[in-house]
Amino acid sequence: MSRQQRVEIDEMLRRPRPEGPSTVEELRFRFRTMMAGMIVPAGIRTRAVTLGEMPAVLVEAADAPKAGTVLYFHGGSYVVGSPETAMSLTGNLVARTGFRAFSLDYRLAPEHPFPAAIEDGLSAYRALLDSGADPSAIAFAGDSAGGGLAVTTCLAARTAGLPMPAAVVAFSPGLDMTRTGASMDTKADVDPLLTREGMAHTGAMYLAGQDPHQPMLSPATLADLTGFPPMLLQVGTNEVLLDDSTRLATRAREAGVDVILDVTADVPHVFQAFAGTLDEADEALERAALFLGQRMRVSAATGTPEG
Amino acid sequence: MSRQQRVEIDEMLRRPRPEGPSTVEELRFRFRTMMAGMIVPAGIRTRAVTLGEMPAVLVEAADAPKAGTVLYFHGGSYVVGSPETAMSLTGNLVARTGFRAFSLDYRLAPEHPFPAAIEDGLSAYRALLDSGADPSAIAFAGDSAGGGLAVTTCLAARTAGLPMPAAVVAFSPGLDMTRTGASMDTKADVDPLLTREGMAHTGAMYLAGQDPHQPMLSPATLADLTGFPPMLLQVGTNEVLLDDSTRLATRAREAGVDVILDVTADVPHVFQAFAGTLDEADEALERAALFLGQRMRVSAATGTPEG
Repeated sequence: MSRQQRVEIDEMLRRPRPEGPSTVEELRFRFRTMMAGMIVPAGIRTRAVTLGEMPAVLVEAADAPKAGTVLYFHGGSYVVGSPETAMSLTGNLVARTGFRAFSLDYRLAPEHPFPAAIEDGLSAYRALLDSGADPSAIAFAGDSAGGGLAVTTCLAARTAGLPMPAAVVAFSPGLDMTRTGASMDTKADVDPLLTREGMAHTGAMYLAGQDPHQPMLSPATLADLTGFPPMLLQVGTNEVLLDDSTRLATRAREAGVDVILDVTADVPHVFQAFAGTLDEADEALERAALFLGQRMRVSAATGTPEG
Repeated sequence: MSRQQRVEIDEMLRRPRPEGPSTVEELRFRFRTMMAGMIVPAGIRTRAVTLGEMPAVLVEAADAPKAGTVLYFHGGSYVVGSPETAMSLTGNLVARTGFRAFSLDYRLAPEHPFPAAIEDGLSAYRALLDSGADPSAIAFAGDSAGGGLAVTTCLAARTAGLPMPAAVVAFSPGLDMTRTGASMDTKADVDPLLTREGMAHTGAMYLAGQDPHQPMLSPATLADLTGFPPMLLQVGTNEVLLDDSTRLATRAREAGVDVILDVTADVPHVFQAFAGTLDEADEALERAALFLGQRMRVSAATGTPEG
């Protein structure tokens, strides 16, 4: 087992950080620096593309690609991050499944608050469908805020009358801007990354004064998930966001949705980004890859969006 | 998707059954007949053995066996069933992992009420360890009451000071003899197999007057799961026992245990037994096989119990 790996990662993440509120530029620089330390797997190739008039990075398997498309949403509290900062995650999904991924460079707050990111997600999905891609061979995936976007883009697609994708995979998704999960308090001491204060700081940029009590901002407690595709939620127990996943899983079950709630003990927010360093990260990604492989109906997939 | 398969299986299971209480012999005959219709996969071989002085069936992969042992507990409310009635499940785990399985023919109620079955599970585990098997290459697995036994045998092993096995896999486990799960009522209409009355009938045989309010009878609400190995709980939403799994998963998370709660919508109790007929059954077993493969530490496994 990797008990020792789990302890080392916790200690590493607890290194002292600057005190007081940071500027948006500081937050973005710090996140980019942290995520640059993550291991991007071999066996993929990337190139800049446009999807639904938004920039994106197309990630493909160098060998033995398979038909099937992952629409990926990077994490970063809707304020920081880019396709590059999530490349260890996106790259691992591609390398392990053979599916291509479009990692969307959706608009960020505070320059573009809610619902800009969801609008961009919906545009990207529409572009994939317009290009001829079969929705039964498209999955949404994302981490942290991007895991939330995978869910809310699905809600937006349903509202728009679009077909559902084949699956949703969310790594430590943020699903409740009202921050009412019990884990917000019970896990405050063991979460080495996220704090209520830090999330209030970035959350205010995304909300821009809007009421968080709406399904597109707090799906864990407010969304009707009827008709949703199968979902895989992976989360650690050292997370203030743990109960965002547990509550969404309960809502999904109650709505008759296939849902796997996959909890790893004593690991932090988006622990899968430590693939190559933490055994649990690689194992979780292997389970996500199997789930995606089971849900994609690749025989009918033919679409190739504009590059 | 297999929406149509799910509907057909539900209708098949709702065929009229005899009214009124049945004798133990009738219950056993009817269960044996029903389970005889399940598909046992190719690629396995079986033979009768003895394990901890109990009869068992050793199930091995015909090709490419791997080191690693599954101790399997068949379902049947502690009153009916045998290694043969669960052979579709045990055989699928063996065929998909390469690990051998010992499916234990533990003593049944009413002839042998609680805690006879758990004593037999513990004896079998002790026999595996005494034979030199490494606990990090042993997993417990079971369905229905046998899924409960996989959990309570783990509790008994901890109490006895034995090392924990590497993993627990439970298909629709029964984990609460007090029957207090909300799903006991909310799922009564959609569960085509189990009823509160039927479970009270067999439950009384297993309890034989003993108080169900104890961890070995109701682990979903009473067991301390500290130190437990990673668990995979698979359950359908058309089950009165659904909340046995959801509650155990919550307890496991709170105890710092890795736990995957894998819920498939609109399928019945132990739907995995429909492998070969229902796509969701094969897919769930494939996920269980990956989980077992990730958890077994096979390099040190050398033990070969007496045949």
